[in-house]
Amino acid sequence: MDNITLFHGAGGSITYRFIKDHILPLLNPYLKFDVSLIDLDDAGIYNDIVFSTDSYTVKPLFFNGGDIGRLSIAGTVNDISVIGGKPIALSLSLIIEEGFMIDELDKILRSIEYTCKEAEVDIITGDTKVVEKGLLDKLIINTSGIGIRHPLLDANIRYLNRGSRWLVDSNLREGDKIIISGTIADHGMAILSSREGYEFSTSIKSDVMPLNKLIDRILEVGGVASINDPTRGGVANLLNEWSEKSGVGIIIYEEKIPINESVKAAASFLGLDPLEIGNEGKICLAVMDEKANEILDAIREYGFKDAEIIGEVTDQFKAVAMKTIVGGTRIIPKPIGDPVPRIC
Amino acid sequence: MDNITLFHGAGGSITYRFIKDHILPLLNPYLKFDVSLIDLDDAGIYNDIVFSTDSYTVKPLFFNGGDIGRLSIAGTVNDISVIGGKPIALSLSLIIEEGFMIDELDKILRSIEYTCKEAEVDIITGDTKVVEKGLLDKLIINTSGIGIRHPLLDANIRYLNRGSRWLVDSNLREGDKIIISGTIADHGMAILSSREGYEFSTSIKSDVMPLNKLIDRILEVGGVASINDPTRGGVANLLNEWSEKSGVGIIIYEEKIPINESVKAAASFLGLDPLEIGNEGKICLAVMDEKANEILDAIREYGFKDAEIIGEVTDQFKAVAMKTIVGGTRIIPKPIGDPVPRIC
Repeated sequence: MDNITLFHGAGGSITYRFIKDHILPLLNPYLKFDVSLIDLDDAGIYNDIVFSTDSYTVKPLFFNGGDIGRLSIAGTVNDISVIGGKPIALSLSLIIEEGFMIDELDKILRSIEYTCKEAEVDIITGDTKVVEKGLLDKLIINTSGIGIRHPLLDANIRYLNRGSRWLVDSNLREGDKIIISGTIADHGMAILSSREGYEFSTSIKSDVMPLNKLIDRILEVGGVASINDPTRGGVANLLNEWSEKSGVGIIIYEEKIPINESVKAAASFLGLDPLEIGNEGKICLAVMDEKANEILDAIREYGFKDAEIIGEVTDQFKAVAMKTIVGGTRIIPKPIGDPVPRIC
Repeated sequence: MDNITLFHGAGGSITYRFIKDHILPLLNPYLKFDVSLIDLDDAGIYNDIVFSTDSYTVKPLFFNGGDIGRLSIAGTVNDISVIGGKPIALSLSLIIEEGFMIDELDKILRSIEYTCKEAEVDIITGDTKVVEKGLLDKLIINTSGIGIRHPLLDANIRYLNRGSRWLVDSNLREGDKIIISGTIADHGMAILSSREGYEFSTSIKSDVMPLNKLIDRILEVGGVASINDPTRGGVANLLNEWSEKSGVGIIIYEEKIPINESVKAAASFLGLDPLEIGNEGKICLAVMDEKANEILDAIREYGFKDAEIIGEVTDQFKAVAMKTIVGGTRIIPKPIGDPVPRIC
């Protein structure tokens, strides 16, 4: 393949292969870090400093339930949090198309301010660039962030006792339960419904939100093997990454997967699989069996009433499978990419 | 002003006012950091971790003397280094236009690899996004980075004894000498000479390079008040920021300012002031008088033979002034922005 396609940035197997083939061999990290680029996890870790980056190219900039500002803070806060970091400080880099309305930008900046306060993080450094009219699609934001090792992580890791000092993707073991914190596919479907020609439902709202405070509460319970946020490529992509990196099988139960009726209907109408659609305010957890119910209760009590135990980890096979409502079992393959481009 | 213009991203007084008016009031950092967004310095600092970000929108991607890959590593490494950080780990976020040639991307990634090795830093986390053809100008790269407090900084700061623990822009005092590490305006003029319709000279090469190793050597000598890299808006912008933030005047001597003849001729032909043109491989230093010659010698011995003491700090006035070769003195105002757009 000679040219970059939209799938190279869609977060699925094509993105994964592209990064493996073109970026990792050239950069050749020396592995002196706890977690590095080579781990393809949500963040890198140097000396207990968790470091993460994301550029946000979401289209449209304002959508039902959020905007690029809220997304750019929540996304990076969540990437730092899910691996076991407590997010502290963010950078904000604005790349703006010439002619962009300053009023619109101020709205986005206010959303950034609000979301920073909600997550209790500060922006401490930044950059502003402007590109000539016609050479950029309005606005791109990069936020990077640093976090410290979460104060509750040591106790969790000791109790877990599986080698890694962090909540990495390779931590899953047979018998673990898989939990999801709420309904799936809301963000991707909200983005799609906000696009021109797709205004099929105004009842679908993005779930975009920072989840570090919820993760604080979960780590108080303990017994967490791994946390991850099912963004590009959705739950299907995340579970396959867990399965590959941990060398285990994962079985989930369709009837247990929380999904809003309107999202389900819209996805079905468009022929999209909600398991492959991105979320921006949900986490999946792999937790020790003995702690699963206590963690589920903690998440629900925190306000995420749709949280469910959706499956478990098995050594019987090395793939992701789903028991369907109609009675069969089907393999959930790794998506080649998120079916909705530019959701984040 | 209702719309974003190219000057909002050109790094001069318009960028400065825009950030002051629109970004700082909304974000309202709580000042619990050593150096924060409100300081408008090259990096923010949390708990002795130096953190910096830059998005690179340079045009063209390949230019005489470098490319966007080398630029994106050198720029962020230098931003961490000049404030007193030792750069350790970088993030790499690629935003690619659909249809971009993978061969070209590989060339840029090899340049990134080479520059990382030169600077002895590692990329430990990343992100890849693709935007539809026609909605992005080929490629934008964001690199953010973290560094530790430079091991030699404590001794330097103790000797300096001026309050701040870092090499911030507000550290200058009367009597300090101003040093520049080499010829000015090479990068901006090389970018311009690489643009369509401007191929006026192939002898002009960008100076883009990581300077952290040079700064290691300078801190061995000690007596450094502040270091900064004269990027967008050039030496004129940097000296004005020092003057404003330190509340001092700066006088420089035109005859002392190193500049390549071809750069001088091209700038003159185009009516551009080389003092306002961006550099990507130079540092300006404000140093204690008693250490100035020793530092100058160290820089020259390191290989930067064009380094010069170009001026000094004074309490006689609060502005930047230049004694010209023809005999007069003229004020060097803060540029409204770099005269060459998209140099970085």
